[in-house]
Amino acid sequence: MSFERLKGFRDLYPEDAEPKFYVMQRAQETAKSFGFRHIEMPSLETLELYRLKSGEELVSQTFSFVDKGGREVTMIPEATPSVVRMLTARKDLPRPVKWFSMPRIWRYEEPQSGRLREHIQFNADIFGADTPEADAEIMGLAASILDSLGLSGMFNIHINDRQLMDLILKSLGTADTLAAFAVIDKFKKIEREEFSRQLTALGYSQDAINGIVKLMETRCDSTNLRKTVLEINPVSKELLDTVERVETTLNLYSSYSESKIFVDFSVVRGLSYYTGLVFEVFDLRGDFRSILGGGRYNNLSGLMSDQNVPAVGFGMGDVVIELLLKSKELWKVPHEPDSFYVCVASRDLMNTALSISSELRAEGFISSADISRRGLSGQLKSASTSGYRYAVILGMKEIETGTVTLRDLNTGTQQQIKRELLVQSVKKL
Amino acid sequence: MSFERLKGFRDLYPEDAEPKFYVMQRAQETAKSFGFRHIEMPSLETLELYRLKSGEELVSQTFSFVDKGGREVTMIPEATPSVVRMLTARKDLPRPVKWFSMPRIWRYEEPQSGRLREHIQFNADIFGADTPEADAEIMGLAASILDSLGLSGMFNIHINDRQLMDLILKSLGTADTLAAFAVIDKFKKIEREEFSRQLTALGYSQDAINGIVKLMETRCDSTNLRKTVLEINPVSKELLDTVERVETTLNLYSSYSESKIFVDFSVVRGLSYYTGLVFEVFDLRGDFRSILGGGRYNNLSGLMSDQNVPAVGFGMGDVVIELLLKSKELWKVPHEPDSFYVCVASRDLMNTALSISSELRAEGFISSADISRRGLSGQLKSASTSGYRYAVILGMKEIETGTVTLRDLNTGTQQQIKRELLVQSVKKL
Repeated sequence: MSFERLKGFRDLYPEDAEPKFYVMQRAQETAKSFGFRHIEMPSLETLELYRLKSGEELVSQTFSFVDKGGREVTMIPEATPSVVRMLTARKDLPRPVKWFSMPRIWRYEEPQSGRLREHIQFNADIFGADTPEADAEIMGLAASILDSLGLSGMFNIHINDRQLMDLILKSLGTADTLAAFAVIDKFKKIEREEFSRQLTALGYSQDAINGIVKLMETRCDSTNLRKTVLEINPVSKELLDTVERVETTLNLYSSYSESKIFVDFSVVRGLSYYTGLVFEVFDLRGDFRSILGGGRYNNLSGLMSDQNVPAVGFGMGDVVIELLLKSKELWKVPHEPDSFYVCVASRDLMNTALSISSELRAEGFISSADISRRGLSGQLKSASTSGYRYAVILGMKEIETGTVTLRDLNTGTQQQIKRELLVQSVKKL
Repeated sequence: MSFERLKGFRDLYPEDAEPKFYVMQRAQETAKSFGFRHIEMPSLETLELYRLKSGEELVSQTFSFVDKGGREVTMIPEATPSVVRMLTARKDLPRPVKWFSMPRIWRYEEPQSGRLREHIQFNADIFGADTPEADAEIMGLAASILDSLGLSGMFNIHINDRQLMDLILKSLGTADTLAAFAVIDKFKKIEREEFSRQLTALGYSQDAINGIVKLMETRCDSTNLRKTVLEINPVSKELLDTVERVETTLNLYSSYSESKIFVDFSVVRGLSYYTGLVFEVFDLRGDFRSILGGGRYNNLSGLMSDQNVPAVGFGMGDVVIELLLKSKELWKVPHEPDSFYVCVASRDLMNTALSISSELRAEGFISSADISRRGLSGQLKSASTSGYRYAVILGMKEIETGTVTLRDLNTGTQQQIKRELLVQSVKKL
């Protein structure tokens, strides 16, 4: 018999489950404050839905199977196709539509640092607005979520634009731009020689490759983007429009967060469906994989339906953010309420203990009366090992005098308090 | 190509996703206030783990498959075996351990009212306390969650005790008690004649069956339980102890909630692993399936490990509670913050609009600046159809005078407000 947990899956005990849900709750609250609405999709979809968009490589990494009804189904390996399916099923919704979701997603790949077989992903998307304002808002939301977690100033947003890259790459050679994106996506992961070799194979000249490598290492903000791009490209209206769009996005973004944003030409994102903005967020020191990533995908709904709805969005998995928050000692839930364990010297006092406990909960505290039926000292030990901050003790003497004893389990100090003044007193602690 | 949602699965749009997550959030907050801690288990487990406890019938209803590594795995059809696996893996935890979780669970069965192929389940368990206090607390938590959702007085808790039923059934005949539980579990679903026929097949006399049928229709509280049980059973210490435990549980429970609780001998629960208390919660009018159910299962950890840890818990699916809340017009999120849509007469004003929006969010409001690039009247229409309560308008005149226009989109009334006084003014709305 095998009662082990499956490889690549996690048992989340309170010390991890609670900070993780705090992160998701902050993300959710921040998205709500931006006017995003909550949706959730099924965990299981037809494999066809994911085959269409994600391609065979991703499909080979899915937990997919034939269900008891003979359907080819998959545990969802990402959220976007499901979100787009849900969008195109509802023509009645006023646009722009702004949605977030927090699904679990699954990939059958070798578990490694920052990658597991199951994770929770926070997703946000804007449909129906093909503007720099929408692009800036989606990144502003991403940055605001990280800011709300105490990460202000600890991350950079690396952006790029696939149309801009398409124009640049086409001016350097005649290769298939999508194939070039696939190579550029590997820039940080493969050796320089291998990078050049793969670009050569696509038909780029050595001069062009030198230009691309130089570009990969260039960072631009809105003050020098135009100059950098025009140095390697012939001026065209299309190019100038694209540069202007990126400049506008960069400028609008600056109203959302203090975190740095710049153009990083090496960011193109792996998935083939991005059509404009692409972005990834990294910790300042570059210790971890990207914390989150996204971009604009204006064609996906058209592939899946008779509707063409421009879209921009991002996804943030819960694995890298956990590593980052842990490294910054921010992996905790701030501001938990005080907790009280109500102990009784006799079982006859249980109903009184339960009433006290209930009054404390009504005031927003954490409180529980003893359920162990141990002696008083056993109950106090239980209170302490379970991490309660205070014990409320109902002893025989206390009942006679109409009082309770309140003991601070951290310091060991205690005081007698009139039963009817207990709640009032603990509110002042 | 099939881009339809799978049968028995749900697309949760905001109108359902938001109330659903409000329900789960209330359940979570209530459990936390009782000192329960949050855990989460994997969505996928070895099929073996579920075969052991849940038996072949449940296994035949799982979404199970052989993964790419050749393992027999299942999408979890319930939470309990996983929770017990997690518990027995951590001998270091001080007991009692009080945990809740909110997994998605999956069953391959015919979708019908109140039953789907995927649902979210709120689970809570207490491990390591085999006392009426623990039994009362788990039901007190269940009732407090329903109370917190506005359902006070709209539900009844039907409890029973498997040891008590075992003693009663043994005094009426010599049949296999577990087999009798399986028949009793169907009492409300099958015809009276079929019920008698199945009990006869187990070896009960007609007199015994008459006694059982009468019992099925009897409701007891702590004042008449003893009398009812002793009328059909020979007095024994074991019987008296069991009756006393149930009486104590009933009495302790009364400190938690105003909702009615009584002994309903027809409640035995389908799963074979319950060893003491069993309970189900029904709406007063009996319009729906049970809202939640649970009980004591003291032997499961011993079957799965070398540890014997007494346990009591319950699970509440999100499907029946949704039907009930909808029927009471309680399917909504109360107290949402006011929402503001910041409109601009010119794109040059966007950064100002974004700053205003950001200030409003910092005060806890929902706010977003226009991302549509439509004209002012288009923006106002967008604000209105998207359900925003107020529009903040930045026009040319407003900029000249250092003011903004605040329009109530419900009433159409509007006022000019000094730009720097806007946040202050809307806080008084």
